Amino acid sequence: MERVPVLKIGDILLVSIQIDMEDQTALQLQEDLAERIVATGCHGVIIDISALDIVDSFVGRTLATIASVSRVLDAETVVVGMRPAVAITLVELGLSLQGIRTALNVELGIEMLARSRAEAEPDDDDEDEADPAAVSTP
Amino acid sequence: MERVPVLKIGDILLVSIQIDMEDQTALQLQEDLAERIVATGCHGVIIDISALDIVDSFVGRTLATIASVSRVLDAETVVVGMRPAVAITLVELGLSLQGIRTALNVELGIEMLARSRAEAEPDDDDEDEADPAAVSTP
Repeated sequence: MERVPVLKIGDILLVSIQIDMEDQTALQLQEDLAERIVATGCHGVIIDISALDIVDSFVGRTLATIASVSRVLDAETVVVGMRPAVAITLVELGLSLQGIRTALNVELGIEMLARSRAEAEPDDDDEDEADPAAVSTP
Repeated sequence: MERVPVLKIGDILLVSIQIDMEDQTALQLQEDLAERIVATGCHGVIIDISALDIVDSFVGRTLATIASVSRVLDAETVVVGMRPAVAITLVELGLSLQGIRTALNVELGIEMLARSRAEAEPDDDDEDEADPAAVSTP
């Protein structure tokens, strides 16, 4: 069984999905990610799907589950790198990835996580870039 | 043909190899990486191989070629995440990945790149990296 690696970069866990998600792979990824969130105390998860040609309902559900599990563990999830064609197909299929935040690429995803973290903890870090206008797209 | 995505994080390009490297995939990756180095002006490349069970002589040669091409383009390459069993097999096979720098994980790789960059450019250079203009999330 193939396994998707979870990379830690600072306060963020990065997952680059490149292989077809089958049941076992998806379950394993959910488990690995949850364990890494607990072990590292990371508050952000970025999932890059720029290698995926197709995002079907199963992958969509997997992403939603990962986001929910992460949220329960106090980590926020951003899905990045979606191809334009994938976005179009998703909407045509009636899948709008509700509850999942998205960004264009990894860097913008990191920015988004930093911003929402700064908003969540206004006392500790005094980041001056807390822009309330740029919140999540539903 | 599958394609390995190249992710940009700050001044670093990150590649996570998860699929079996065949001739075409390896060539495509070399090409993509070289183009991204030129397009972004990044000075560091991190290749994560934590998903690989086996690193044979072909993969070893591919990594060496990538490192050489990057060096010519003024970017340094660090291979990270090698499994212990892979390291043992590599040495038993007589492949010692000469000319390739390694680190245990992505974070240590980033540190290594930052350190060697600081040594290479002792003068304070305040490069203003032009942020991509399109910050809007879709």
